[in-house]
Amino acid sequence: MSRFWSPVVHTLTPYVPGEQPRLANLIKLNTNECPYGPSPKVIAALKAAVDDTLRLYPDPTAQALCATIAQDHGVPTDHVFVGNGSDEVLAHAFQGLLNHENPLLFPDITYSFYPVYCGLYGIRHETVPLDEAMRIDIADYRRPCGGIIIPNPNAPTGIALDLSRIRALLDEHPDAVVVVDEAYVDFGAQTAISLVTQYPNLLVVRTLSKSSALAGLRVGYAIGQPDLVAALTRIKDSFNSYPLDRLAQVGAIAAIEDREWLAKTTGKIISSRNRLTDSLGKMGFEVLPSQANFIFARHPDRDAAYLASALRERAIIVRHFRTPRIAQWLRISIGTDAECDALVTGLADVLAQNGG
Amino acid sequence: MSRFWSPVVHTLTPYVPGEQPRLANLIKLNTNECPYGPSPKVIAALKAAVDDTLRLYPDPTAQALCATIAQDHGVPTDHVFVGNGSDEVLAHAFQGLLNHENPLLFPDITYSFYPVYCGLYGIRHETVPLDEAMRIDIADYRRPCGGIIIPNPNAPTGIALDLSRIRALLDEHPDAVVVVDEAYVDFGAQTAISLVTQYPNLLVVRTLSKSSALAGLRVGYAIGQPDLVAALTRIKDSFNSYPLDRLAQVGAIAAIEDREWLAKTTGKIISSRNRLTDSLGKMGFEVLPSQANFIFARHPDRDAAYLASALRERAIIVRHFRTPRIAQWLRISIGTDAECDALVTGLADVLAQNGG
Repeated sequence: MSRFWSPVVHTLTPYVPGEQPRLANLIKLNTNECPYGPSPKVIAALKAAVDDTLRLYPDPTAQALCATIAQDHGVPTDHVFVGNGSDEVLAHAFQGLLNHENPLLFPDITYSFYPVYCGLYGIRHETVPLDEAMRIDIADYRRPCGGIIIPNPNAPTGIALDLSRIRALLDEHPDAVVVVDEAYVDFGAQTAISLVTQYPNLLVVRTLSKSSALAGLRVGYAIGQPDLVAALTRIKDSFNSYPLDRLAQVGAIAAIEDREWLAKTTGKIISSRNRLTDSLGKMGFEVLPSQANFIFARHPDRDAAYLASALRERAIIVRHFRTPRIAQWLRISIGTDAECDALVTGLADVLAQNGG
Repeated sequence: MSRFWSPVVHTLTPYVPGEQPRLANLIKLNTNECPYGPSPKVIAALKAAVDDTLRLYPDPTAQALCATIAQDHGVPTDHVFVGNGSDEVLAHAFQGLLNHENPLLFPDITYSFYPVYCGLYGIRHETVPLDEAMRIDIADYRRPCGGIIIPNPNAPTGIALDLSRIRALLDEHPDAVVVVDEAYVDFGAQTAISLVTQYPNLLVVRTLSKSSALAGLRVGYAIGQPDLVAALTRIKDSFNSYPLDRLAQVGAIAAIEDREWLAKTTGKIISSRNRLTDSLGKMGFEVLPSQANFIFARHPDRDAAYLASALRERAIIVRHFRTPRIAQWLRISIGTDAECDALVTGLADVLAQNGG
């Protein structure tokens, strides 16, 4: 607390990201990174881009990257907005599109950055409980609202909504912006990007951190009609003219152009996810049906905080949230099959020691 | 204008950065970039860092980079905050430290992003006119205020304040945060970083875009006491956990460690600045005494907008602001000696054609 802080600073409860341990040789299944390195074409493009042109500012409009994204999704370039990771894109959306007199709605169990943005920008909001099976029921959103944001698939549950439900949500709220946060969509859910041209109230947010294996490069984007993109651009140009550096722009273009790598890699992760889900099921875990690159699981009679801590002693880190409704669950990122096997062995060991 | 926009979006007047032309072979003296590529050690470090670890999130606290900056300036690591370019650092400072009941003060002629941040965050502010010689007079700041921000040297004038004046400003406003924006300090002005340990109200902001020739990498930082750094960190952690990508962190460390390159390069630019100032003086231009990597100049009887446009026809771009008090001035970035010579030749040509 300080007399020098602006009043808002005193009220903030900042987001806490998953640990980025400095130890080597940990099996890191806590932040939903890709277990495989990015496309070799990304590596080659980045190495080639490291030169004296770094003395020059990047293109502030990232035109080439926006055009690549637009082509990839079959939308016009003016439907694309890019940012320094999807977190920055989301922040601008909260400030520029989701701050209205009526409250913003989002699930009670969801990406825990959403309430943080509300605090930063003073946005009225209400959380809408997931149903008993931890699913989003769009009927629960039938109330006055200034906007809606949901991840699809949701995090940390991994459960996806069908496109028909997204469409119904858009139809039921024609005067509210509906943001669909598709950070994990490439692992089996249906994207809503095909609906963007029909729905002026739809904004879809994406990241290259998960399926493109580029968490270290910080690139995210949004797809929506030009009216929504204009709001994000006005915020961005009032905040930071050049949020994406030259290398991030080049690397992102190479990643998006390598569709073959994406299909192959997401296929491997989906296969590992299914294998891990089976293994944990056989060990007595309840595992939610995930369409993401992580699973959300609980054991009927083992404390989740204890399991997370016992795994950590075995050099395996998973994510545990000390939050109502999910304090007995673990979110486990999908690693390589070898990493998943090590997790299963580790858990079996913990369960056995604890009188399995 | 849209019913979907948050109310603040309608009120914004976004910043307009200098043009980043897509044409090659232009002499680009409009955005104060370094005419020389970055240190070869930066290039080597970046190439070595392009690998499969890009799949992992960066260190959200950028601890290694903060330690390098701290060591470079002889301050503790907890006195350092880093961001995605100094524009992001400034944005967080406006939101987190400069939004109080009393108005924020800054010069009428200064970095034109300052009033934009005030619009984005709803910050009350008053501009304080430069004196007739286009200098900041700290006596003019003796009024109730919630904070002060000045660039040193100021932009676009290039004129620097002595450290004794900065110290006096800090003494006169012990209850207000004073932000000194030192984007251009390496080109001849005195840094205020030595005052940070004595003044809890001082925040110094820096960038690697100018003197380190890394505009394309987007790295800026602030130095202040932990209380001020904590406010910036709380804002950052409520906005974007990982604003600096892995490559930006690695490149910035290599740049800061190569002090020899910095001294050599800034020396060359200062020498070119003095040479260009002499040349323009001989052509009848009034040139303000610059301590930056640009000069601010006007001709007694040639319209500045006309000069800028005529130079552009000759493939040379400089910056012209259509703003009260400075509409007859040109801001010219210091290029290589060859680029400065081309500018002088181009201007001589324009003046001659116009009946010089």
